[in-house]
Amino acid sequence: MGGSLAGALRGKCRAVVGVARRAGSIELARARGLIDRGTTDLATGVGADGTHPPADIVVLATPVRAILRLLDELGPLLPEGCLLMDLGSTKAHVVARMAALPAHVQPLGGHPMCGKEVSGVAAADPALYEGRTFVLTPLPRTSPAALELGHALVEAVGARALVLDPQRHDRLVAAISHLPYLLACGLVGTAERAATADPMVWEVAASGFRDASRLAASDVTMMLDILLTNREAVLQVMEACGAQLRDLSERLEAGDEEGLRHALAAACDRRGGMFE
Amino acid sequence: MGGSLAGALRGKCRAVVGVARRAGSIELARARGLIDRGTTDLATGVGADGTHPPADIVVLATPVRAILRLLDELGPLLPEGCLLMDLGSTKAHVVARMAALPAHVQPLGGHPMCGKEVSGVAAADPALYEGRTFVLTPLPRTSPAALELGHALVEAVGARALVLDPQRHDRLVAAISHLPYLLACGLVGTAERAATADPMVWEVAASGFRDASRLAASDVTMMLDILLTNREAVLQVMEACGAQLRDLSERLEAGDEEGLRHALAAACDRRGGMFE
Repeated sequence: MGGSLAGALRGKCRAVVGVARRAGSIELARARGLIDRGTTDLATGVGADGTHPPADIVVLATPVRAILRLLDELGPLLPEGCLLMDLGSTKAHVVARMAALPAHVQPLGGHPMCGKEVSGVAAADPALYEGRTFVLTPLPRTSPAALELGHALVEAVGARALVLDPQRHDRLVAAISHLPYLLACGLVGTAERAATADPMVWEVAASGFRDASRLAASDVTMMLDILLTNREAVLQVMEACGAQLRDLSERLEAGDEEGLRHALAAACDRRGGMFE
Repeated sequence: MGGSLAGALRGKCRAVVGVARRAGSIELARARGLIDRGTTDLATGVGADGTHPPADIVVLATPVRAILRLLDELGPLLPEGCLLMDLGSTKAHVVARMAALPAHVQPLGGHPMCGKEVSGVAAADPALYEGRTFVLTPLPRTSPAALELGHALVEAVGARALVLDPQRHDRLVAAISHLPYLLACGLVGTAERAATADPMVWEVAASGFRDASRLAASDVTMMLDILLTNREAVLQVMEACGAQLRDLSERLEAGDEEGLRHALAAACDRRGGMFE
């Protein structure tokens, strides 16, 4: 997500500076033309060591719990009025931690709705954000000018800003993103169990299984952070979905053809054409 | 599936004759070059009325319960030694009904593993079968020559034949195809319920939800027939998957980070790279 954002912003601002833990990531990002320059040192990256002008905008693109740690670390390093954003997939914990930043920093939560199940600089795609929804979760302390700068960033990468309250954001993505991830894991786990009895299972897996299970290949650390920072909302939709699935099984077991047809038709009507 | 098979076979056999309920489907199939000729009359289609030479191969490409009815109807109409195949998504019921066909017919169950969530002649794609697994379920009465002709058909459309016992086929597809369909329906139903409380749900739906829910748009009559003719195996995998999902929820609720990471990593390891 970070590499894609860098590539999408390059040429649209003074300079895009990449900060990564591994020097190899920086080299690759530079070779791919995603950044103007890069470093493995956080203070150097934000211009706190005087080698370059200080950053106007800093965007954190790591798993959520790494964002929480980085926020504490970054606060004192940032120049007056710097906009500090993140791309974390849950927002309540991030925004709560942003509220504790030093007063001279302008915090703004962000979450572009365009995940990939592959991550890293090698998978970066500057077109990733085009036409996508980019959620912004301002704090009461976020100035109108800082929020406007956030909007400008979203527009610069071709996305559509949607301002949401962080708790509301987290409830929405629990249903639309975290639930499908867990269903994909449950599906893969069940197929794996079936394959223990009969390895031929994998021979008959086709595009239906491929798409339904795709999210299970997501980065585990990223997903673990998401689930642990959105626990209540995730547990709620898991329970709601469990009830729906039990209902489908009960109708099938009872041979309730009309009831089953009704439920399947409702899902088909809702989903059909949704992404055309 | 029928239109795609017709298009894939055209030019590779004497003539491809389409039979459909609606004249419009025949016209469209002819206009798209999928068939040599077509009719809405079953007896005419198989050459039983003397207007054309009788069919060497007849392939039924309808929902499973329509296949069951057509088998009874077709038996007496077919010429001596005619290979009668189907493309039904479950095989035990179909093969059981095929066993009751008149002795002069050569029956062979089939199921190409390449479904689409869209159906009809307009969605037909002659390249659909290329490189895909095409399950064949011969009966004890199927002659070696008839089975060989079935293999030739599979190869002619670019697919890879896999001979399976019908019960085994049905257990495999319950885990790999029917379960993901029901999970997609449960996902859409749960999102729909969340959207009743907050319609913004659909605004944040991205590619993850799109792929995870795709199967919910499948043809309802086709899926209903599949579920009702594979009830026991489907109920079994639904129960196994329900247990997996409850386990994930319990680990999350307990804050069992290591247990959760272990389960998610197992799914990621299994799924990652499976379709590359």
